[in-house]
Amino acid sequence: MTTVGAAVIVLKRAFAQPSNLAGLRLKEASELLRRKAASPVELTQECLKRISTYNASLNAFITVTADQAMESARAMEAEQRRGRWRGPLHGIPLALKDNIDTAGGRTTAASELFKERVPSADAEVVRRLKAAGAILLGKTNLHEFAYGGSSSVSYFGPVHNPWSLDRVSGGSSGGSAAGTASELCFGSLGTDTAGSIRIPAAYCGVVGFKPSYGRVSNRGVVPLSWTLDHVGPLCRSVEDAAIMLSVIAGYDELDPSSVEMPVPDYSNAPKVQVSKLRLGIPRSPFFEGVDAEIAKAVDAAIELLGKFAPVVSEVTLPAVDISMDEIYARVRTVEAYTYHSRWIAESPEKYQPSTRERVENGAKVQARDYVRARRDVDLLRREIKKTFSSVDLLITPTMPIAPVPITRGADPTAVPYRNTVPFDILGLPAISVPCGFTSGGLPVGLQIAGAPFAEQTVFALAQAYERETEWHKSRPKLT
Amino acid sequence: MTTVGAAVIVLKRAFAQPSNLAGLRLKEASELLRRKAASPVELTQECLKRISTYNASLNAFITVTADQAMESARAMEAEQRRGRWRGPLHGIPLALKDNIDTAGGRTTAASELFKERVPSADAEVVRRLKAAGAILLGKTNLHEFAYGGSSSVSYFGPVHNPWSLDRVSGGSSGGSAAGTASELCFGSLGTDTAGSIRIPAAYCGVVGFKPSYGRVSNRGVVPLSWTLDHVGPLCRSVEDAAIMLSVIAGYDELDPSSVEMPVPDYSNAPKVQVSKLRLGIPRSPFFEGVDAEIAKAVDAAIELLGKFAPVVSEVTLPAVDISMDEIYARVRTVEAYTYHSRWIAESPEKYQPSTRERVENGAKVQARDYVRARRDVDLLRREIKKTFSSVDLLITPTMPIAPVPITRGADPTAVPYRNTVPFDILGLPAISVPCGFTSGGLPVGLQIAGAPFAEQTVFALAQAYERETEWHKSRPKLT
Repeated sequence: MTTVGAAVIVLKRAFAQPSNLAGLRLKEASELLRRKAASPVELTQECLKRISTYNASLNAFITVTADQAMESARAMEAEQRRGRWRGPLHGIPLALKDNIDTAGGRTTAASELFKERVPSADAEVVRRLKAAGAILLGKTNLHEFAYGGSSSVSYFGPVHNPWSLDRVSGGSSGGSAAGTASELCFGSLGTDTAGSIRIPAAYCGVVGFKPSYGRVSNRGVVPLSWTLDHVGPLCRSVEDAAIMLSVIAGYDELDPSSVEMPVPDYSNAPKVQVSKLRLGIPRSPFFEGVDAEIAKAVDAAIELLGKFAPVVSEVTLPAVDISMDEIYARVRTVEAYTYHSRWIAESPEKYQPSTRERVENGAKVQARDYVRARRDVDLLRREIKKTFSSVDLLITPTMPIAPVPITRGADPTAVPYRNTVPFDILGLPAISVPCGFTSGGLPVGLQIAGAPFAEQTVFALAQAYERETEWHKSRPKLT
Repeated sequence: MTTVGAAVIVLKRAFAQPSNLAGLRLKEASELLRRKAASPVELTQECLKRISTYNASLNAFITVTADQAMESARAMEAEQRRGRWRGPLHGIPLALKDNIDTAGGRTTAASELFKERVPSADAEVVRRLKAAGAILLGKTNLHEFAYGGSSSVSYFGPVHNPWSLDRVSGGSSGGSAAGTASELCFGSLGTDTAGSIRIPAAYCGVVGFKPSYGRVSNRGVVPLSWTLDHVGPLCRSVEDAAIMLSVIAGYDELDPSSVEMPVPDYSNAPKVQVSKLRLGIPRSPFFEGVDAEIAKAVDAAIELLGKFAPVVSEVTLPAVDISMDEIYARVRTVEAYTYHSRWIAESPEKYQPSTRERVENGAKVQARDYVRARRDVDLLRREIKKTFSSVDLLITPTMPIAPVPITRGADPTAVPYRNTVPFDILGLPAISVPCGFTSGGLPVGLQIAGAPFAEQTVFALAQAYERETEWHKSRPKLT
């Protein structure tokens, strides 16, 4: 299907079913805008309408900035009329996880503590989105302070999974995933410290991309754990995620995590020869203890992938004395406590009980144990390069189990991050793409991870998979 | 003076005064070797002779590997006869600080704890020196575990300053500096976490160069504080230091601190236009509370430098909430404790009392305070780049005071590192070059620091200064 053909088909859909304009993929919407077959104002109105219809049941948004969004939409429309076209995000309505600072707009991190916090400056990623012409619809709900994987622990109430409202959306970027899946926006930003982009992407049936550590600035994002935090996009297609990443990626000399490297245009069909990519399947531990239905969907995906690229079945990741989970627990617990220590002492009652307990645990870790774990992170980030001499990509299930009921969302074991956290520790680019459904109708995610800064390779395989499958086209039935 | 002219003059000296062959600059000796006007065996014999004559009074070496050195010298000589010439270190006798691992040779870090420790692998810098054809004479004395600036605290006894045997050599690389100043070797390696290369270089009247953080591998070096440790050369001229740095610099994918950047040939006259370099003089705090005689020598040096490059008198370095000294204390204390914690618990009696106290203090720092200090280091390393938009180099006294008597060497305030530690925290390249003497005949050091990875700029100015002065040619009178 060529782009022109797609645009025509889409135009027909858009006019036949105007309520579905918000259901276009970002790339399709952008193509309509560029051709003036749709306008930023129309798209924004459509998204705002859907938010007002469906947010009550989803609780995906904490704050909707309707007036500002409409103002930006009108400005982008006027700009286009004057002949300026900023690129593929010009006039595209997006959403931001509410731990990403917006100047003059409250940024709560889903907490009572920050419920009236109004930053004076935009996060660097927000600055980049605005400069690219994006329309910001508002701030999405999350697991409080991004400190958990369910998004059911929030001062503003739990996020509901659009595929089954009594189930968790996954988290911590649950609102971004639920909102994107439900066509309340064309894409969104999330953050990922142990899986917080990929987990809700898998659980809500969208694409979630965590870039290499240092690829996207963390400046102006409420930290969970500086040395492991990543910002990235959630979208309804791989290409859409690539478009968003191209805009937000790049060096930020004021962010200590940022790496000075050129940014390729991820959204242009990368010159990667997919047939030459060696796909590594790290059975242990990623495939152990995986729900049978999930395992089946992922194995089918691997079988399909094996038709266009060689599969290497024996791959091991580097290990250190302690497990990835333990390294993560030490680093995250201490860094989160460092950030919160003053507030947790002064206003412990302003934290949800499970978050409070997690934060307070940070005071108990010895500095020595933190230093060792940090050192392990640094060593592992070096050693992982060896793995990529024998394979190009790693393929795993994103999640070993399906979403649990929201009532279990405060339990830290209810949403396991054991398949996602290794790629935060290792700092590798990793994507989750839809690859099936459980018999209960819940989405299943396939995770593809690449070598440091090999974002293009990850996108190439994910796009090849997406082209051959229909999973990413399924949408939840909202009521 | 051309190179050929220098070689001729030197040859005359060498034959007129054969005992002075070891007193050549590394570059001069290399030129003789290349022309076969001297041999690796002769140079090595000469150094070993001087070590056996003078080490008893200096205590610069802990271990002399005479047999191995002679064997290497013969091998390098034979290799040259067969027509292979490895470059400027081919056949040059050098010394290694005894916290740098040598495979099969004990590496004590000047401690009782490690007095019989024999590493199984060479440190990466040792591997590089050997591959370049260097002859390794042995391992030099240091402040125990590099945890202090005097080099008078060592299981093997204090290092003596060759200019005044009852005074400290400075440290922690005191043996490397004293040995190089006393012509026991043509150059040496040291390590620098708060000034441990530049302090003894200043106190012993030699050139000491600390590269940018990440420029030289730390793998196989007994750590004091991983995130602040640097390896670098001590020599009798700037050019010699540049030759050594060219050999040891480069990416090491197994060292978490190592940075992947191309290595210029620092030893070739760099294409830096010295007349265009803006020299920043950060009066506060570097020139405050400086001994009058030192201040006078440094001001004279700045006046001289001002004749060939513009001087910018107002420069401030970035600051954070707490002082550089406090950041250093937190990071170093915790990281050193992390490394030593098992041994300090099991065998506290195997540490010198002042080292033991310093190590044990690491258990008292909260993880939160460490994380904040580490974060400050990361932020400062970003912010310092702004300083270098208005200046190219920073000029300061290396030390605010002259060397104290050895009896005061256990007192941590006796050898202040306040002028050197900022460049470890900031990760900047910094050199100390001889710039005068006190009325008591003790050497004074001038410190020149540059932007991250601007090693060539630092070398260019230091060489320009050296060409106009005679200070680096003075040698202590040994008895």
